[in-house]
Parts: sequence; C-alpha cells; structure tokens
Amino acid sequence: MRIAIDAMGTDTAPAAEVEGAVRALRQLDSDIEIVLVGDEPTLRASVQELVTQGLVDAPMNRLHFRHAPDRVLPGEPAATVLRKRPESSIAVGAGLLREREVDAFVSAGSTGAVMAASLFALRPLPGVERPAVATVLPTSGAPTLLLDAGTNVDCKPRHLVQFAHLGHVYARNLLGVDNPRVGLLNVGEEATKGDERSIETYALLAADERLNFVGNVEGRDIIHGVCDVLVTDGFAGNILLKFYESIATFMVSLLQTELTRSKQQIDLPEILKSLDYSEYGGAPLLGVNGVTIICHGGSSAKAICSAVRAAAQTVRTDMVAEMASDLLALSEANLPENAS
Amino acid sequence: MRIAIDAMGTDTAPAAEVEGAVRALRQLDSDIEIVLVGDEPTLRASVQELVTQGLVDAPMNRLHFRHAPDRVLPGEPAATVLRKRPESSIAVGAGLLREREVDAFVSAGSTGAVMAASLFALRPLPGVERPAVATVLPTSGAPTLLLDAGTNVDCKPRHLVQFAHLGHVYARNLLGVDNPRVGLLNVGEEATKGDERSIETYALLAADERLNFVGNVEGRDIIHGVCDVLVTDGFAGNILLKFYESIATFMVSLLQTELTRSKQQIDLPEILKSLDYSEYGGAPLLGVNGVTIICHGGSSAKAICSAVRAAAQTVRTDMVAEMASDLLALSEANLPENAS
Repeated sequence: MRIAIDAMGTDTAPAAEVEGAVRALRQLDSDIEIVLVGDEPTLRASVQELVTQGLVDAPMNRLHFRHAPDRVLPGEPAATVLRKRPESSIAVGAGLLREREVDAFVSAGSTGAVMAASLFALRPLPGVERPAVATVLPTSGAPTLLLDAGTNVDCKPRHLVQFAHLGHVYARNLLGVDNPRVGLLNVGEEATKGDERSIETYALLAADERLNFVGNVEGRDIIHGVCDVLVTDGFAGNILLKFYESIATFMVSLLQTELTRSKQQIDLPEILKSLDYSEYGGAPLLGVNGVTIICHGGSSAKAICSAVRAAAQTVRTDMVAEMASDLLALSEANLPENAS
Repeated sequence: MRIAIDAMGTDTAPAAEVEGAVRALRQLDSDIEIVLVGDEPTLRASVQELVTQGLVDAPMNRLHFRHAPDRVLPGEPAATVLRKRPESSIAVGAGLLREREVDAFVSAGSTGAVMAASLFALRPLPGVERPAVATVLPTSGAPTLLLDAGTNVDCKPRHLVQFAHLGHVYARNLLGVDNPRVGLLNVGEEATKGDERSIETYALLAADERLNFVGNVEGRDIIHGVCDVLVTDGFAGNILLKFYESIATFMVSLLQTELTRSKQQIDLPEILKSLDYSEYGGAPLLGVNGVTIICHGGSSAKAICSAVRAAAQTVRTDMVAEMASDLLALSEANLPENAS
C-alpha cells in the first residue's frame, strides 16, 4: 500500500510531515510505503537531518519522494488552485491519487484546495452530490463524528441525509461502532424545532430505515457523546469545530496560569489526552471515490503519523466500496424526483 | 422603579427567585421595589423561611407579591401560552409590563414563552421585525454580546442588520463600550466567505456607516474577544451558546477528577469567575418597547439578583428610547423597498 503525504501543508512544513512519515514507517505495518510530495532537495535534507539525529531505525527503503516545487498559499481560492498551481504539492499529490499511483493522500494544506483537488482527481461516488469533511470530536463518552466540518455552507435536506449515510459507513468501518447512532444538530429536541431545513431533514432521517436515527442533538448534548455521527451543514459544523478547538486551548491556558500562581503541579497532558485531536488522525473527505485525509495546519509529527494510520485503515477496510454500495442503495430508494 | 420577578421559572423555584429578590433589595439602590409573581401563599412562606434564618436586614417594605396560581410547564408551545395559561406567572408578569405597573420583568421560565408574552405585552419597536435575545459570552478579553441567542432560526440579512443595531445600542449603554465593534459570525475572514445570507449580510453591515463593523468572526476567534457584538441567527447562536455552557462544565469536571486523584487543591471558583454567567445578569430581550430579562433555568439566587441589577440599569440608562431612535433612523435609511 502506498500513501502520499503533502509535505508542504503544516505551519512547520516540511519538518512535521517528514518526522510524521518516519514515525509511521517505524510504527505501522511493513507493507506501507510512503511518498513525500514537495520540494525534493528540501525534503531529502530534512530526512538527512533526522538520520543525523540518530533516527536510523526507520526503514528508509519504504520512503519515496515526488518532486513538487510549488505550494498553495493560505487564502488562495480553492477553485482555481489546480489550474494556477499545477506543480504545487496539493496538485501533484492529488495527481498521484488520480493515476492510482498511491492508495491514499494525506494533506495539512488549505482544506478547500485539498477538497477541490481530491474531488477533481477522484470524482464523487454515485449518489453523492457534495462530499463532506468528517471530524472526530472528543467527548466525555465515545468520540462523535461531525460532518460536514468542511465547506458545504448552503445545504439542502437531501445533502444532510447523504452526510448521514457517509458518516454511518465511516463510523461503522473506521470507528468500530456497530449500529452508529445518527443525530441532527438542532436547537431543540422535538421534531418540529429549528429552521425549515432542519424540520424537513428530521423527517427524512426519521423515515430512513437503514439509519439508526436518534433525533435532534442540542449544543449542550454534544460534549456528552449522545451520538456517534452528528449531521449538520458546513456552516454550523465549521463554527462549532473551530470554537471547540479554541476554547479547549483557552481553558488550559487559564488553568496553567492559576497552577503557576499557586506553585502546584498537575499532569495537564494526561487530563487533556481525551481532547487531543492528534489522537484521531485527521479528517477524512467522505463521498469521493478514494481516500483523502485532511489534517489541521497546526498538525504535529504525531498528528501526521495518526493520519497516515487512519488512511491505511481506511484503505484496508475497503470503506470506499462499502460507502459506494450504501449510497447507491440510497439513490435507488425511490426518493421522489424533486425531493428537497 | 418597580421590577417584577417571575418566581416560578428556575429549576429550584421559588427558592432562587425569593432569595435573589431579597439580595437585590439589600444590594441595589433604595428606589427599587420588587414584585414577586407566583403562588402568593407559597411565596410568602418562602420569604418567611428566609426571615426565620435571620435575614432580617432586607427592607421588606419594598417587596410586593402578585398572585399567579399557574405556571408554564417545560416544552409547552410558546405561541399558545398566553391563551392557555392566562394565570401563569409568565402571563401575569408580562401583563404587569403591559399595564406599565412595573418597569421591567425578569424571568427564568421557558425562553420562547417569555419572549412571546413580552412581545405581546410590549410590542416591537418600529423598524424591528424580530426582537432578539442577547447573551453575554465571557472571553479572554472583554465580554462579547451574542445575538440572536433566542428563537429566530430563519433570518434574512436585514434581520441580522437589525440585530447589529440592537446589540450596538445595548453594548454602548449597558456594557459601557464607546464604539462597539460589531462582528458577523462566519466560516472565514473574507467578505466572500460563507453561505449566501452571510455574504449579503456582510455587504449590508460594511455599508452601514453608523456601525463599527469589524468583519467576519470565525469560531476560533470568539474566545479571544475580538468584537463587542457578535451577530448571527438564532440557530447558530443557540447551538454555540449551549455548547459553550456545557463544555465549560465538562472541562471543570475533567479537571476536578484529576485534582482529586493527585490530592491537590486549586481555587477553581477563582479561575472560573471569568466564565461565570451569573455575573452578567441574564439575557435581555432586545427590540421590544420595554425591558424583559430572560434568565437560565438553572439560575441561582446570585444570578437572579444580577438580572435585577441589569434590569434596573437598563431602565435607568433609558436604553429602550435610544434603541427606538436608532432603529427609526435605520428604517428611514432609504433601504430599497424589497431589500433582502
């Protein structure tokens, strides 16, 4: 199995990506080969530095390079990235996917650009109008898969139903949940709560016998892990996710200040393990005909390694094929022609 | 000045309300009289209990009662509450507002029911199509006023602009901010980010010379206090607010467990003062011709007292009159007839 890593995506590129790749080669199964995509001389120098530091036990014969001299800059419009930056690490990495030279692509670059390039390279699965980015939220119970956490900001009820099916298959195959509980993010419990779209989506989800729909999930319920898959559009999903990340950081800093003041010690890393995104291995792009994992720009080597692990598991469980058959059944499920 | 308190709203009613009223009488200016609305015999017994406990220094001659034998139950539809429960504490309290027997009404009852009853009693200000509930979010900087945190889930751009003006006047008069920074909750910084409604709202806010519009605010920015007034619809606002409340509680419990395990002590209340909602005195209903403050169902006596203080300040600063003149100017600002 070959997995490409965009080596120019994180804030500390290529250091985090190179070290993440080396970690993955040491920790994961020996049939995994890694292709680092970026400026080849820079990447080779970065690897050499790790070797000099004594990291000689990684099987370097399974590490490959693909030259991509350009990179996508933050804020560049995603839609034109492939045309304007054909030699960027994102475009070249997605090209490896398209040519089936690799089985999966991991990138911490601009979410929109990675989505656009992957979508162009892989095409959506039949029955999927809008691929979604799924993110695992740590909770006090089992983690919850939130989707869409990406860029689908104007969604119709049928798109949200498609997200529910994408999340259902991912939670089953990758998170090991037997009959994933699917919830709809909303402002109240009752079926009649929320905006028009929420009310319509509730009805569609409740009528879908292939889903284990547990109803509306309010903002206050999320942290208690009341569902395995939480469906919403990319607008609320993005705001919620970014707020969660920032508030966790903020509360830790509040606490750290107080601990320093009172000269006490506490094992913060231990407490916060349950909130550590890097444990969960990036956000998969679901609904495309292949495997792309999108990582946070602030990803560490550990987070990149986790993402490679998630990519390998996704390939091994044949999730994409199962998703395709699930979605095909959905599109054949006699939805009225002009369903909303 | 007379302020009515719905004594049947909190989870611990009427204990929190009665004690909150007594606190307010002791702490606030001596021209404030309080009317407790609820089952009068129960309320009198509850007050007597406090007297027995030695709380004899509160000026009881400024405490009055208005009998309301019924109460609104959780989950009852807000729209029919006035008709179905005319003797409920919410309906009777709102009636006191309507007859101008009191200057303000404080309730911890069902948000929807309090909104509906207050709206019926007070009517919206000219130029306001949808009154909004505003909530103060604690941040690492100055607190941010979020609106709508209420029930306006299907909003158009012009409604969001009205919210911006309501928040602008409230932040100036009640939070003491000179030229409040107004932000729009969105998924990216640029003017072109977000759903269609966000893009249109951005343009309207940017063109409004009477507002200090600072642009889009992302989920990750909120906690840093980057704006004084954060505008969004009741859908995202409600989810964000409830998530914030629940995650703060969750993180404290995580921490408490670790502190107990490691046998250490830390002054949690001190750390969390900056996150304490009860410091901020409830959520005002803005855009109606009068003063209603909505409190959380879990409010303590301290929170009720803070809400009474906020109500008194709102009356004293003549906020409603200023809001009326601001909104009147907005509606006369030559918006095209069929503006979105």
